[in-house]
Amino acid sequence: MLVPKDSWKAKAEKKTSETLAKIAPEWRLSEIELAKAAKQRDLTGAFFDHYLEAQEIDIIRQDATCIVGKVQRGELSAMETTLAFCKAAAIAHQINNCLHEIFFSQAIERAKELDEYYKEKGKTMGPLHGLPISLKDQFHVEGNDTTMGYIGWIDTYEGRKDKELIHKVNSQVVSELLSLGAVLYCKTSLPQTLLLGETVNNLIGQTLNPNNQNLSCGGSSGGEGALQALRGSVVGFGTDIGGSLRIPAAFNGIFSLKPTHTRLSYRDVANVIPGETTYASTVGVMGTSLEAIHLVFRSIVLTQPWLRDPNVVPMPWREDRVEETISRAAGDGKANDNKPLKLGILWTDGVVTPQPPIARGLRLVVDAVKSVGHQVVEWKPPDQQTAKRVHLAFLKADGGHDIHRQLDLSGEPLVAPLRETFRLKDPMSLLTYQSLTIEGRDYEAKYSDYWNSTADDDGQLVDAVIMPVAPHAAVIPGKFYHTAYTEVINLMDYSVVVIPVTKANKSIDKADPNYTPLNDVDAKNWKAYDAEIYDGAPVGVQIVARKFEEEKIWAIGKIVHGILKTAGIQ
Amino acid sequence: MLVPKDSWKAKAEKKTSETLAKIAPEWRLSEIELAKAAKQRDLTGAFFDHYLEAQEIDIIRQDATCIVGKVQRGELSAMETTLAFCKAAAIAHQINNCLHEIFFSQAIERAKELDEYYKEKGKTMGPLHGLPISLKDQFHVEGNDTTMGYIGWIDTYEGRKDKELIHKVNSQVVSELLSLGAVLYCKTSLPQTLLLGETVNNLIGQTLNPNNQNLSCGGSSGGEGALQALRGSVVGFGTDIGGSLRIPAAFNGIFSLKPTHTRLSYRDVANVIPGETTYASTVGVMGTSLEAIHLVFRSIVLTQPWLRDPNVVPMPWREDRVEETISRAAGDGKANDNKPLKLGILWTDGVVTPQPPIARGLRLVVDAVKSVGHQVVEWKPPDQQTAKRVHLAFLKADGGHDIHRQLDLSGEPLVAPLRETFRLKDPMSLLTYQSLTIEGRDYEAKYSDYWNSTADDDGQLVDAVIMPVAPHAAVIPGKFYHTAYTEVINLMDYSVVVIPVTKANKSIDKADPNYTPLNDVDAKNWKAYDAEIYDGAPVGVQIVARKFEEEKIWAIGKIVHGILKTAGIQ
Repeated sequence: MLVPKDSWKAKAEKKTSETLAKIAPEWRLSEIELAKAAKQRDLTGAFFDHYLEAQEIDIIRQDATCIVGKVQRGELSAMETTLAFCKAAAIAHQINNCLHEIFFSQAIERAKELDEYYKEKGKTMGPLHGLPISLKDQFHVEGNDTTMGYIGWIDTYEGRKDKELIHKVNSQVVSELLSLGAVLYCKTSLPQTLLLGETVNNLIGQTLNPNNQNLSCGGSSGGEGALQALRGSVVGFGTDIGGSLRIPAAFNGIFSLKPTHTRLSYRDVANVIPGETTYASTVGVMGTSLEAIHLVFRSIVLTQPWLRDPNVVPMPWREDRVEETISRAAGDGKANDNKPLKLGILWTDGVVTPQPPIARGLRLVVDAVKSVGHQVVEWKPPDQQTAKRVHLAFLKADGGHDIHRQLDLSGEPLVAPLRETFRLKDPMSLLTYQSLTIEGRDYEAKYSDYWNSTADDDGQLVDAVIMPVAPHAAVIPGKFYHTAYTEVINLMDYSVVVIPVTKANKSIDKADPNYTPLNDVDAKNWKAYDAEIYDGAPVGVQIVARKFEEEKIWAIGKIVHGILKTAGIQ
Repeated sequence: MLVPKDSWKAKAEKKTSETLAKIAPEWRLSEIELAKAAKQRDLTGAFFDHYLEAQEIDIIRQDATCIVGKVQRGELSAMETTLAFCKAAAIAHQINNCLHEIFFSQAIERAKELDEYYKEKGKTMGPLHGLPISLKDQFHVEGNDTTMGYIGWIDTYEGRKDKELIHKVNSQVVSELLSLGAVLYCKTSLPQTLLLGETVNNLIGQTLNPNNQNLSCGGSSGGEGALQALRGSVVGFGTDIGGSLRIPAAFNGIFSLKPTHTRLSYRDVANVIPGETTYASTVGVMGTSLEAIHLVFRSIVLTQPWLRDPNVVPMPWREDRVEETISRAAGDGKANDNKPLKLGILWTDGVVTPQPPIARGLRLVVDAVKSVGHQVVEWKPPDQQTAKRVHLAFLKADGGHDIHRQLDLSGEPLVAPLRETFRLKDPMSLLTYQSLTIEGRDYEAKYSDYWNSTADDDGQLVDAVIMPVAPHAAVIPGKFYHTAYTEVINLMDYSVVVIPVTKANKSIDKADPNYTPLNDVDAKNWKAYDAEIYDGAPVGVQIVARKFEEEKIWAIGKIVHGILKTAGIQ
């Protein structure tokens, strides 16, 4: 059947083929190569490297801090880093379908400008000079679309046909990155509506997990996670309103830092239900190393984003908090006897029990940190069901009106996994909305009181809590039944770092056949585990600190990850 | 006509006579004295002092910092300060009707405990040891009602009949004050609903302005302003969602500091429409001196309120910002040549022109600061009507449901000035509510951009802006037509200090008979000015800095007030 030219399908096809056409012919893969990749379970590492030259591999396999160091010392040019990452991203997109926008030519222009600057002035433009940084497709970059996966947003500004705005806006974060010397080159895929733990939309279809193509890359910053798993990027920006930075980080074996939402600017960033600010979405960083995240996050905060965005709290980057925390362990992670870390462990939320790979991942972390002298205590917070119910109610409160307004621009339908959740309904009554606000506020206070109570026995507050990100390592498409592990933390707006721990292993991670599910959802989740399918899927954990503790939680992530490395786990 | 025993009127009468009965007989005024006070235009100063003994006058006329200094050095006991302020408050209430709750016996017990502590340990309990502090009747103090002016809240916890809560809760701020050594002794009057610039409710009736009984004391922290004008208190706590700290401070000739709302804790503080958090009410401090405000605000922040209330931003008191700002002027206020203050001046919002006393007050401030070398520039922010419309819409969004729920507990009606505004209506649609949220967010960003643009010509940002608090000095009851001067600033959640400037003077402040009103509201406001009635009314101004600039704006208030004193204006 012919697709009518003005149908949303035709528009999507046109857009995606135009995007593909932005990849230089010499970086295009043949049908044979594409077919080979499609059959490959794990696209990462050596498999991915075989597309690249040795020098390119050298660049993309480095940590972001090494890259900027080399550029600073003149050992690498911005052009070299840019071309290497553009090529890697081009390959990644062809085999993994993880990009919405490609602007390599803009990146190359930028690299030229940066190299000239360096040559003329004998110094870099800023701490990110020559570092390619990828962006989830919510951030506006002048000259490019931001579709957020909506067909109706193609060639518009968030669906508006205002010529003053279309392709003329940089999100504040984007301007900050440019002022720091970064190179921007692509925008990554995300699910329609952003409110899904997988990445699927009507524009590009689906993005799978490059570590294990049986599985989803997660969401909503899913394309970002996938691209970084392949090393088509070493650091990038995403957002998180219910787990959207943490889920794809954990599912793809990378790192992320989700700050409290007023730490980085959301100004001029496209969003879903932007008028729902009770539980606001958060801009955060994903990276292939903690160092990359530190470099980028700190550099941004040093630009004083609050001067330009009144919603950012004027809180400087507090490197002393990093140092203070780091000093609580020796170089090898061994606890400082005077003040070891006191970590909570949430094995389960009592609603959905994590599948075997996650249970083992948590155990590995707990055993490792305990073995070097840190303290671990059981974490029994106030009933998480309340928090999940309240939080989810806010996301659904407008009855899907904002989402349907965007869908109606092109006539595209909701994607299958969202069809029921966001079916158009009457909005919630404002009185219910305001009651829920109070219920959420009270839950938050109760959780905080619980946290304070951890000092009751020994005078020491729990520093941070180790938790599952989801009850599974990545997810079989369509089987993400329980998002509470991340969502509850959004209600509190806590600071969270995600670190990779291990990989699912079919010979160890066996499901207990006698397990008695706690409820229907637990039964579905337990049934969804298949050791064969999951084999090789990354397992990450989230480590959670209280509000505005970005520096501290980053440092705790660093200590814990260091301990895992020393123990040979990572 | 007999009032039925269970009617709201009977309940109110019973409550107010019980409150009055808490005043010791020796502090009760005779009918003759009351009649004399009723006829007195200005109750403050010498008139008020004649009720007191010399030693009591000595205490209540001192600054809060002097009082705590003397107590620290053992020159005054907590009992002496407590008795002096209890007596002063008792007199104030009898002649000015400014209290909702009296708990002098609790205060006296507390003073005893503090004096014993001091005697035993040879040191104070904290920086507020022995300082009597008054509270707006939204703060819960164990053992006492918090009615917030609602008859239905008598003998309940915010209308709830839960025995675990009734008279068993301290607001977090209250606990903090007690931990710092303060003495709490009374709670001050406020308008029904809090959403009025005057103080009138069905419980106590009306509180007038003690400086000029023709006029209202303002609101909603009106009783607090009135009590301090009389020196029945030197420092106390109020709240501000549309001007409620600033209006009564300006109308009563005292000082206030309205911080950004996440700087002090609102936990367990009674409130109106508590589920409306887009533009949240703010706890702040009112005082008879800037030093009193500094002492109390700083001491509270040093207790790290964010550890107990997750809604408080973990931002320490930054005394370095105070010093940095203070250093921009010499002791006499003369500008430091390197970096004079750059102040904006908002003469009018272009909607309602300030009456002559306010216009003169602004001029006095501007001339004085310019005469010592500071820079003053015209302030032309984005159209304030937008901000006012959006902000007011949020206060009315629930269609008065929260308010009527409280009124219905006793069957009391809305007070006259609110009868139209809060007539029960359908709540706003959530979609409109969320659209307005975006409109407000965009206005805030635009205002911030405007502020940034003040650096365009000379590289220096405006430090703060001098503005009217209202288009009149205090207000003739029923004639507060335009609250935008304060309300717009709540939309931005800016940090504001109010300082007294002068008093209305019938021989100078003459209305221009040829003035052509800008619109109907302006005409009403202009017509409401009567030089004879206003004579002697305090004139204050608000000085506004950006979010989280409490330290800076406090210091600017200090410099400007110092300049006014040196110039003989204050």
